[in-house]
This record gives sequence, C-alpha cells and structure tokens, in this order.
Amino acid sequence: MDQNTDAKHPLVLFMPSGKRGRFPVGTNLLEAARELGVYVESVCGGRGICGRCQIDVQEGRFAKHGVTSSADHISAFSAKEQNYASKRDLKPGRRLSCSARIEGDLVIDVPQEGLAQAQVVRKDADRRVIERNPVIQMCYVEVDEPDMHKPLGDLDRLTQALEEDWGFADILVDHHILPKVQSILRAGKWAVTAVIHRDLETSRPSLIALYPGLKNEAYGIACDIGSTTIAMHLTSLLSGAVIASSGASNPQIRFGEDLMSRVSYVMMNPDGREAMTRAVREAIVGLIGKVAAEAGIDHTDIFDAVFVGNPIMHHLFLGIDPTELGGAPFALAVSGAIHCRADDLDLELNTGSRVYLLPCIAGHVGADAAAATLCEGPHRQDEMMLLVDVGTNAEIVLGNRNRVVAASSPTGPAFEGAEISCGQRAAPGAIERVRIDPATLEPRVRVIGIDHWSDEPEFAERAQATKVTGVCGSGIMEVVAEMFLAGVISEDGVVDGSLAARSPRIVQNGRTWSYVLWDGDARLAITQNDIRAIQLAKAALYAGTKLLMEKQETDHVDCIRLAGAFGSLIDPKHAMILGLIPDCDLDRVAAVGNAAGTGARMALLNRDYRREIEQTVRRIEKIETALEPKFQDHFVHAMALPNKVDPFDKLGGSVQLPERGASPDAGAGSGRRRRSRVVRER
Amino acid sequence: MDQNTDAKHPLVLFMPSGKRGRFPVGTNLLEAARELGVYVESVCGGRGICGRCQIDVQEGRFAKHGVTSSADHISAFSAKEQNYASKRDLKPGRRLSCSARIEGDLVIDVPQEGLAQAQVVRKDADRRVIERNPVIQMCYVEVDEPDMHKPLGDLDRLTQALEEDWGFADILVDHHILPKVQSILRAGKWAVTAVIHRDLETSRPSLIALYPGLKNEAYGIACDIGSTTIAMHLTSLLSGAVIASSGASNPQIRFGEDLMSRVSYVMMNPDGREAMTRAVREAIVGLIGKVAAEAGIDHTDIFDAVFVGNPIMHHLFLGIDPTELGGAPFALAVSGAIHCRADDLDLELNTGSRVYLLPCIAGHVGADAAAATLCEGPHRQDEMMLLVDVGTNAEIVLGNRNRVVAASSPTGPAFEGAEISCGQRAAPGAIERVRIDPATLEPRVRVIGIDHWSDEPEFAERAQATKVTGVCGSGIMEVVAEMFLAGVISEDGVVDGSLAARSPRIVQNGRTWSYVLWDGDARLAITQNDIRAIQLAKAALYAGTKLLMEKQETDHVDCIRLAGAFGSLIDPKHAMILGLIPDCDLDRVAAVGNAAGTGARMALLNRDYRREIEQTVRRIEKIETALEPKFQDHFVHAMALPNKVDPFDKLGGSVQLPERGASPDAGAGSGRRRRSRVVRER
Repeated sequence: MDQNTDAKHPLVLFMPSGKRGRFPVGTNLLEAARELGVYVESVCGGRGICGRCQIDVQEGRFAKHGVTSSADHISAFSAKEQNYASKRDLKPGRRLSCSARIEGDLVIDVPQEGLAQAQVVRKDADRRVIERNPVIQMCYVEVDEPDMHKPLGDLDRLTQALEEDWGFADILVDHHILPKVQSILRAGKWAVTAVIHRDLETSRPSLIALYPGLKNEAYGIACDIGSTTIAMHLTSLLSGAVIASSGASNPQIRFGEDLMSRVSYVMMNPDGREAMTRAVREAIVGLIGKVAAEAGIDHTDIFDAVFVGNPIMHHLFLGIDPTELGGAPFALAVSGAIHCRADDLDLELNTGSRVYLLPCIAGHVGADAAAATLCEGPHRQDEMMLLVDVGTNAEIVLGNRNRVVAASSPTGPAFEGAEISCGQRAAPGAIERVRIDPATLEPRVRVIGIDHWSDEPEFAERAQATKVTGVCGSGIMEVVAEMFLAGVISEDGVVDGSLAARSPRIVQNGRTWSYVLWDGDARLAITQNDIRAIQLAKAALYAGTKLLMEKQETDHVDCIRLAGAFGSLIDPKHAMILGLIPDCDLDRVAAVGNAAGTGARMALLNRDYRREIEQTVRRIEKIETALEPKFQDHFVHAMALPNKVDPFDKLGGSVQLPERGASPDAGAGSGRRRRSRVVRER
Repeated sequence: MDQNTDAKHPLVLFMPSGKRGRFPVGTNLLEAARELGVYVESVCGGRGICGRCQIDVQEGRFAKHGVTSSADHISAFSAKEQNYASKRDLKPGRRLSCSARIEGDLVIDVPQEGLAQAQVVRKDADRRVIERNPVIQMCYVEVDEPDMHKPLGDLDRLTQALEEDWGFADILVDHHILPKVQSILRAGKWAVTAVIHRDLETSRPSLIALYPGLKNEAYGIACDIGSTTIAMHLTSLLSGAVIASSGASNPQIRFGEDLMSRVSYVMMNPDGREAMTRAVREAIVGLIGKVAAEAGIDHTDIFDAVFVGNPIMHHLFLGIDPTELGGAPFALAVSGAIHCRADDLDLELNTGSRVYLLPCIAGHVGADAAAATLCEGPHRQDEMMLLVDVGTNAEIVLGNRNRVVAASSPTGPAFEGAEISCGQRAAPGAIERVRIDPATLEPRVRVIGIDHWSDEPEFAERAQATKVTGVCGSGIMEVVAEMFLAGVISEDGVVDGSLAARSPRIVQNGRTWSYVLWDGDARLAITQNDIRAIQLAKAALYAGTKLLMEKQETDHVDCIRLAGAFGSLIDPKHAMILGLIPDCDLDRVAAVGNAAGTGARMALLNRDYRREIEQTVRRIEKIETALEPKFQDHFVHAMALPNKVDPFDKLGGSVQLPERGASPDAGAGSGRRRRSRVVRER
C-alpha cells in the first residue's frame, strides 16, 4: 500500500499535464479536472450525451507519483455511459468523466488528440499537442418553456440557463441571433447548443451562434499570410486535431513580387490598396472552401480564425493602407492584437465567427514573427535563443525569460535566388545542395526533383527528365560556403584566380573570376558578383543579430531556430560557415518549419497563448537597425567569411575552417596579399 | 462671516443638483465637480478650447446653505479663458470650470440647457431638464508622433492617450476605424477627438468614431415607435437640448390598422415580416433625415439612438417575427434591453452609432410602457401611483418604491372611436368635448378645429368651414359620462326610453333607445350599442387595474397618470365618472403626454436611467389578466357606471353622481326594475 494513501481523499493525477490533487471519495471526475485547471471538453454539460469528456484510467503502480491506479478506483459504468455506449462509439477502457466518480487513487489519461478526427490528423501541420482552452465553447442547455406568469423573453431564459448551467454571466448576444432565437428554441424542443465566444477573461461572453439540440462540433482556422504563400490549417476546436491543411499563392504577387513593390503599387494606384485587400481576402475565402471541402465540413461550422502575417500583409488584409510602412518611421497603423468579426473581413465563415490577429512587434517585425516567438518560446526559457525568419526582410528575435529583443534586417532577395546570376526559386531543377572536393575542386550537387547526388549512378538518367536549370537559395549558400572551405574564395569572398591553373572550373569573367558549378544544358557559374550579393545579405542579417546580442550583453547564443520556408531548407552548418548565424553548437541549431503557422494554431486553440504573446510583445524591445551607429561596423566585419573578428570556435570544433587572415589576390585590381596556402588538414 | 467657514477648505455648492463639498484652496473647479459626481461636460479635457465646461458663479449670501458666494472667490480669468473668449462667445459671468480654481466659498450654477442650442429648444418635447450622463463621450487627445524606438502602432498610441488623459482602459476599437486611423491622426496633426461609447459600467469602452482636431458636438435621437405614429426627438448629447422634433405615420398601417391585424399579416404572408420591418425602418430613416435637416446638422453626427415601442413594434423593428405575440403564452423573443449598432438596423447614422432599446415588461406591456414608467417613476416614490397608457391594448402599471405591478388589458378600439356608430379619429370635425344640461338634456359640444363651444355665438360661423363629422374617443367618453350624469342612462348603461317624452333627443332605435348628440349636416346619435362598447372597454381597463390593486393589497391609488396621445385628450373627471380609472382626488390625476418619448430621451441622455429601468423592469411583477380568476367578477362590476361595488367617494365629493342602485327599465326585453326617479339635487 502506498505511503501517502488517504482512503477518504484519494489522489488523482491527470496526464499529460501531471496536475494532481486529492478529492473526497465520490467526487465527479470532470469536476475534479476543472478544479485542477485540467482542460476536459464537455458540450452537453454533464448530461452524458456529447461524449467529449472521455478519459482513460491507467492501470498499475506509478512509483514516481506514489499512486496505484486501477479501473476499480472509479465508479461502475453508469446508466448514462451505457446509454452513450449503446448509441455511439465508446472504446474499451474509455469512460465519460462527467458521469464517473472517484473511489480511489487514480492516474487519468486525458486524450489530447480528438476522438473522431484522430485518424485524419494531417502530416502538413506540426504534430505538437497544444493544450486547449479555446475562445469558443459549445454549451448545450435546456431552456424553460415560456410562462405567462414569468414573461421573460425566450432569449432571456436562454441566457439565464447559460448562466445557471455554464456560469456565463452578462452574456452579449450577436444581433443576427435575435430574429432566429424563437424558431431555433422551438425546433430543438427547448434544448439548444449555444456557441459562446469569450477571449479576454475580463470581457463579457458573447452568444455568437445557436443550434437546435446537441451540436457536437466546432472548427477554427489558423492562417499564415505570407507575401508569397498563404497556408491554412482547419482544426477541430473540440479535439484540437488538424483535419485539413492547404496552401495557395498569394495573388498579390501580380501587383508586386516583394513587399516594397506592393507598397509602391498602393502609392501609385488609387485603387491599389483595395485591389490587394480584395485579392488576399478572396484567396483566403478560396482556401477556406478548400479545407472545408477536404475535411467534409460546412464552412458555417467554423467559428474562429487566427491570422498572422508580416506588417504589410497584416495591414492589407485588414484593409489598411501600408504606405506608412514604406518609409521611416515605419509607423504601424495598429500594433496590438486585433479582435474582429469574420464579416468585417468579408470572410465566409459562420455569421457570428470571430477573428483574431496576433500583435505586430514593429514596423518590420510582424504578427508572423510574434507567432513564431509564441511557438518557439524564447521568453519561456533560460537559455539565450536566437530565432530567425530568413526572407527578403529577416525578422530576428533574441532572448530568454528575462528579456527579449527583436529587429529586422534588410537582407534583400539574394537568399531567395534573386540578384544571383544563376539563381532561381526552389522548384524542380534547382540545385539545392553542393559539396566541393577541396583537392580537385570538383563539385557534387543535389537537385530538387532528383533523389540522388550528382556523383551517384542513378543521377544521370533522372537528370534527363528533370533538367538542371539554376541554383536556389540554399544551393547558393552551400556553394559559397563550400567554395570558402575549398579555398576557392578567401575569407573576404574573393575568388582565387590563380586556381584556374588547377581547375577548369575557375574561369575569368572580365576583371574577376567565376566558379562553374554546372555545365550541362545550362552552364551555371557562381560569379564574384553573386558571392558579393550573398555576403551583403548574410552580413545584414548577422549585423542585426550582433546588435541584438549587444543589447542582451551576451557574446554567444545557446541555441538557434531557423523559421520560415527558407529557414527549413538551410543546412545549419553551411549557414554558420557563411557566418549567416552566430557561432553555436551545431546540434543546437534547428530548422523549425512554419513556426508562425504553428503559433497561429496555438493562439487558435488556447486563449492563454493569446494573452502570453500579447504580454510578451509588449515587453519585447525593438531595435531599429538603421538607427544603431554600430550597425555599420558589424556589417563590415560580417562581410568576411564567417566573420572578420568573431571567432566561431564552436564551428571550428566540427568543421575545419580555412586559416584566418589568409587572403588571395582577387586578380587584376586587387591589392590584397596573395594567400600562400590553404590549410585543410587537421 | 459664515459660521462654517474654513478659509483653507472653502465650501462649494453645485446647482441645480445641490451637491456640495469642501475642497482645498486652489482646487480646479471641474475636478471638484467630478469628485462630487456633478456632471459637467468637457470635450477638450481641460485645455480650454471646447468651452463645454462653462459655469456661472452665483453672487450673494445663501443663508439656507450658510454660504456667501462671490466672483472674487474664484481664480482670476486665466490666459486659456481669455484666449477662448477672444475666439468664441463667452457670456459675461461665464467661466470655464476647467481653468478656474476655488479660492473661497462658492455657489456654482451648472447651466442645464446647452449653450449654443438653448434658443432653439423645441416646444414639442417635454421641457423637463434631464440630468446628463450619456453613453457617448467626446474626448479630445493629443497623440505622440510615431517613434522608431518605440514602434507602438498609431492606434495603440491613441488608445494609450485616451487611457492617460481620460481614464479609459482596455478600449475596444470599432473595426471601421482601422483603415482610417492613420489619415485622421495626420490630418489632425496628432490631435483628434475620439467618440467613446460606454453603456454598462462593467463593459469595456468602445472607440466608435474619430475626427481630426476638436469635434465639439454630438447628437442622439430618441424615438417612440407607436402603431399609429412614430415620434422622434433629435438631442444634443453635450447640452441635453432637444434641437428638432418630428413625427410621421407608421407606414405599417397599410398592412393592418391595429396590432393584431399586423401579426395576422405576418402569419398570412411569407414576406410579411420583412416588408413591415423594412417599412418601419425606412420611415425612421426618413424621420432622421427630417430632424437632421431641420436642425441643420449632418446625420453622421448622430452617435446614439434610443427606441421604445410596444412589443409588436419592438419585434418588427428588430426584424423579429411577432407571431408568438399573437397567442398565449405571448412569448417575447427577447424581453431584456437591446444594445446593438445602427448598422444592424439599417439606420443611416454614423457608421459607429449605437442603438439601445428599453426592456419590454411582458408580451403585451412593451418598452413604451417601460419608458413611461421611467418617465413617471412610480418606483421612485412612496405614493401608490397608477400609470395608464390607454389604447387598443391598455398598459397599466401600479406601484411605489416597494413594489410595482403591471398588466395589459384588451380594451379594444372603442376609445379610439372605432366600433362606435358615429366614431372617428381625433381630427378636425370630431366632437371632442360634451356637456349635457340635466334639466333640458340639451348638449353643448366642442369640435376639433373650432375654438368655441357650440353654444357660443362664434361657433356657427366657424362650423361652416369645419363640418362636424363624428365623435372622437374623448368625445365618446364625455358624452357617455354626461348621459349618465344627466340621467339619460342608468348605472348599468341603459338608455331611459321614458325620457323620450321630455326630449326629442331620445329616440327609439329598434328595441333600444339612442341619444342624438348632433343633428346638422351629419346626424350623430349615441346608440345603446355605442354605450355598451364603451362599457366593455372601460370595464376591461378597470378590471385590470383592480387586479393590480389587489396584488398590491391596496383599496385606493394616490395619484393617476394618463399617458399616450389619447391619455392626453381624456378629461380626468369624465374618465372617472365613467369608471375608467379608480376613485382618486381629481387634482391628483394628470395627463402626461408622450411619457414613453420622454422616457426614451431620459435613457438617451443618461445611462444611469437605463440601468434604473432595467432593474425596475426585472422586479416589476407581471399579471396576465386572462389567467386571473377574479378578472371576470371585476369586469362585471366595472360594466356599471362608475362601478357596481366600488364607492368612488372622492369623485362624489366634487361631482354629483346619480343615486346608487337606480336602474331604469331598458325598454322591451329588459326585466329590470324601472328607476323611480333621478336624484340630481344635493
């Protein structure tokens, strides 16, 4: 028998949260969970008809917790449970917590992926389990019939029942409900499911939709509006499961490829703002239709939506002119979180649906960066975390639970393959991985669409179908880093023309030298200008990071998270060799995919995360890189590979870097001292 | 020198509220008023530019209060005041309380009718001064310019300024403001006037409109939607002055004259509800245009609107099907107060305008009765007050501060001249006043449109122009009461056919007798059926009142208020002779006009009145007359004039009533004992 056993007050442990407490024998299990703050869904309010409050009883001795849990420690199968099991699917071992009572020590497992949808969870979305506390609650109530002696209105008796059964006082009622309330109550024979929205704890709850009888499902969407791509996840608000995901190109691309060209379009065209707002909203409506169709649900069953995006996407989506974001002081029209209605944004969801947008951090650090911060949580831990979303405008967040600072850096489009002579978007035919043999200077490459390295026998055949057409962002970064490791370029990024004697791949190109990476249908050469473009981009990003490190008064970062589509493609080692990111243990550098999208999904499923990111953004200190006098110095140092002054000792522990200070002659016009030798052995 | 003088803490008295307090010398006068809860308007927040906080200093010794007030007891004219006076009109003696400081004892007069509009106050609206605490507040603020180091959004800095200067925390922002905030802030050079709406003290304030610079006016409308007439008052929310009033026929009349025929129309026609909702809203939009044009203001400067109406008007205006109100249990869709937006109701006001509807009391006792209750305030005093709105469906409220009860009684349309052989609406040509000489049985009458009694010499000439065409409701009531006083009818309402011998005006009409009231172009006779119709109507009203008196366990009422258009026309004495209202001192019976409209205006100007009537309606006990077993008995007794069993002693003290129990033979078919004589002498 366990030491701590108290027969009259058994110990109950809820997993996975680990929350625990003692309760008198006979306590209702759902109420025990509520008392401990364990989120267990219930739509029917304990009537045993919705089946949402299912739990599993763990069997056995849990020495760590000093508990022996057994199915005998819970009340016998109730009539309500038998009734439910006879009509619906109640898996063996599952119990309805609303009708089970505590009779002894228990370890209870609260299933975290929903019930019905568990099998269709999408691979596309991050698989993390998000603790739920959605702003939408489905509340089944039985309403008194009208009584001439107590002539309270139908709606008033409904809100009274919601207060009595669910504790919602002072409910606001959406106007569109008024004309329908009488027929819905009568259709449901005075039993209805109310859809209640409450975001801020201090706000009054709102009745946003109403259904006759039991309505046992509610959905929400989380959407990341990127300048290039819009990604959407459809999620069950009751189970937390992602039931469909989809993406689409941002149709604003037709008004301008990058953000600044879209701002220009607005400035130049009287209807430009309106046209771009309409375009993005229509694309989102299209995606809503797509995910709803894929999941086989009605779009009117979507009651909540969370959007994130960079400041310009954010403003255009809201119908705000982004012109102010086109120049100093880069004034956001609104930086705080936005609460509005789907109708305000012409979205086709339920009439009562609500919309939430995460706060923006600064004029160039948007709600997407806030969502990525929420997802990765630098503010939740002790280590110094660097979170970078690499794009034409890199968003950089650095901090820990004590302090978080953020900045953006104008990296330009080089990382996306633009401004590079042989650059292209990441698409089939693009070289994405590069290795250069330092002895022969011969490269081997991986091409998108071909699952083999170019030196593998299968490659040639596959390359017949998928022509090699260019080099994408990650390929550019790798080839430059490999050229540096192989001694083809100096730490200053200058191609060593003398190597033309050793390799036909070093070719003269006017006054400078190039490296021929590929010579097939297309001839792809990395020019001195290409290298300069990459140096400029990575130096801007690194200089921004350095400013943040200085604000934090730290000379190192403990871990690095690379977010965004491009961040997921970057090889951390090559990024560090380039000096794109600061020195760090390589196994502490991770690509985290669409962290902004996951952050949006967190805010969708749990309003506590909304408060968390709102509070966090308020205390994030924003650094405007352009205003910092030291930016220029950091930038100049960061032009070198990996850096003129910073040591990169940790990187040096796992990668053999060329000797410092060596600088080959850049050929004609270069006054620099010729590098004597390339030290590769170690 | 006054006894209570404390030179360091002068006494300040604010009139007309009489609120008083001592403040340290040098205290700002506006702040002193705020501290005492005295409502003094201010838009500019003490910058001395809006001129809304003007007050008068009273001069002299106020023995009652023990205060000697003098203009010397207030700080000298400030630079701000001089600046204001140089640009605008500041009347002699007037001071800006925001820039005046207390230097000695003061009696301060807070002007209750606004400043600019005082001269155009309308006669149409009740002249009562309503203490102000509107839900709309105009707040001038100066906002920080954007700063790259603190990248808070423009809107966020605005709400921050509103919190700092005006104390509004946690402001909700109407979505339509978002796209406009940047241009408005820049147009106002970072000085703007925010229109803030806060109704419930517990709700978050809302930013509903925004203007560059100082916006120094805000309007609201109060509207009573009657089944026949819609009445509207346009009011300055800053001064409280009514600046325009107008009325229009309710266009729903084309769907049905009375309420039940409109309900039938909805039941019979698929688009009936929608057509009637559209009709009434269009009429209201028309009236808004009319009052705005009359006052010379822009309709977008109207930020708040209060509506009242009976339950069916209330539901149709809100777009709710009133069918449930057509039969037991007369279930209201909603009985509580409604808060919504003007846009929800297709009203053309400011985009951000809000709308409030007072609560309904019961299925047949509407928001109009609630507004009349708010206006007359039975719940605010100790006496037992009877408040009656006479109409096809009379709404009756009875009570005092301890308890208020309410009922409706189906009086039918007799009081409006319908169901009466010679009845007509109150319009030129209608007989509205009647006196019958008990000796000769000859009548004299007053006719609408002719300013003389029919026995005055000028009458005949005027009657050439205005033909006498019928008898309106008040005329019907008077003629029946006068016939009773003159002995033409018995207390049971039976015409004494034997009087045909004395007067040619008593004429046989089949098996009953009639009284010829007028014999000109038209012959207007009061038939036995007409008298029965009046008896039925007044008996229904009286029986309802009696039930309420029983609920209150009282055998008398202290005062009576007759509300509504018809209530204003009724002569209290004749109403009491008829037994329409219970016995009461005649000088305690008053017609109070459109009390519902005044109640709506009170709710428009002061949100405290909204809370007052919401709380009052919640505790009003509703009596469903049809369900009360004693209704029938009361009804039968009330068929007699004034009543079979109730004494009417107070009425008897000022009017000589016929002897009790006398009952003439009603002629053929009546088995009743013939009345021996009519005792008129006393």
